[in-house]
Amino acid sequence: MGAPTFEDTEDDTRAAILRATFDALCEHGYANLTIQRIGDTFGMSKSLLYHHYDGKDELLLEFLDYLLSRLERETPRSPTDSPEERLRALLDHLLPEDPSTERVEFLRAMAELRAQAVHDEAYREHFTRSDRFFRAQFVDILEAGIESGHFEPVDVEQVASALTTVATGSMFERVSSDDPGVTPVRAMLESYVETKLRPESDT
Amino acid sequence: MGAPTFEDTEDDTRAAILRATFDALCEHGYANLTIQRIGDTFGMSKSLLYHHYDGKDELLLEFLDYLLSRLERETPRSPTDSPEERLRALLDHLLPEDPSTERVEFLRAMAELRAQAVHDEAYREHFTRSDRFFRAQFVDILEAGIESGHFEPVDVEQVASALTTVATGSMFERVSSDDPGVTPVRAMLESYVETKLRPESDT
Repeated sequence: MGAPTFEDTEDDTRAAILRATFDALCEHGYANLTIQRIGDTFGMSKSLLYHHYDGKDELLLEFLDYLLSRLERETPRSPTDSPEERLRALLDHLLPEDPSTERVEFLRAMAELRAQAVHDEAYREHFTRSDRFFRAQFVDILEAGIESGHFEPVDVEQVASALTTVATGSMFERVSSDDPGVTPVRAMLESYVETKLRPESDT
Repeated sequence: MGAPTFEDTEDDTRAAILRATFDALCEHGYANLTIQRIGDTFGMSKSLLYHHYDGKDELLLEFLDYLLSRLERETPRSPTDSPEERLRALLDHLLPEDPSTERVEFLRAMAELRAQAVHDEAYREHFTRSDRFFRAQFVDILEAGIESGHFEPVDVEQVASALTTVATGSMFERVSSDDPGVTPVRAMLESYVETKLRPESDT
């Protein structure tokens, strides 16, 4: 998963509106984003946009809901990869060492929107749900690994919560610092997983 | 260290302006903050404010610089506490389990300002400097601990960078989620420090 895509055969117009919302957010940043500017980015009839949406936050929250709902729907429930591979894949997704330009653009947008949660309950609800989704992903992987004997028994809720917090930190640091330390925090997680989940491992 | 204080005997007016800037930021949030609103919060002559500052970002960046410069200046270079105590104190400061209302208010303000770094180079420079300050604090503690034999030899730059990233994540999550996981990430850090820095410890 890199930058978001907006294919939605059920509703092409909605997909186009959300694409325009994301593009305008990337171009102008949250503070300078207006419905007018989303309209300018939106190639189709602007009147539709003005008719249906009162403000940029309504569009941005729908954009966030669209992406998360799709992620919740599409995430496979019976993956065939091993727990180690699934854990690594999720960490690679959340803390990529060498993300594409599009992916960084997406992380920048997410950081800006998450910061709105400081003063806006609707954004806080969204990111609470988003955090819970990723925690549940970690819990699922950890439980599968413990059940199959790949991982030591651990407090899965606790470990999943901590990994989600670290991912948030890495994401925020990456887009708000000229000197983000992605490799060090990945090394910390490797070490943590190694000693916590596989203390008897000698590979 | 809880909420910021603004005592500055050399320049009472500047301290009062920065206090008003912080208070207005807490009350209105970044997006709704204006020089006018900072002026309304500022009890003294408003003309001074309008005369000296072009926009809210100028004031906010000066506020950030004021706090960090003081921290850089005041942090003791020859502390008497043990490396373990210093490490715990720094983690308690950056990832408090039960912060005061004022401290949370401060963390909310910091998250909002840090998010400006996504689109504003001046904020990015500030938070790069801020991260480097806290990393240097960790490096100092880790090096002292290794030298005194309290800690195992580790890649101090790497560990310090990772701890700083985790602190940023915990701070951001705390103010942007209804269900932040501070205890889990502290437990992860305890476990990491225990196995990484004190692998031979049996206490």
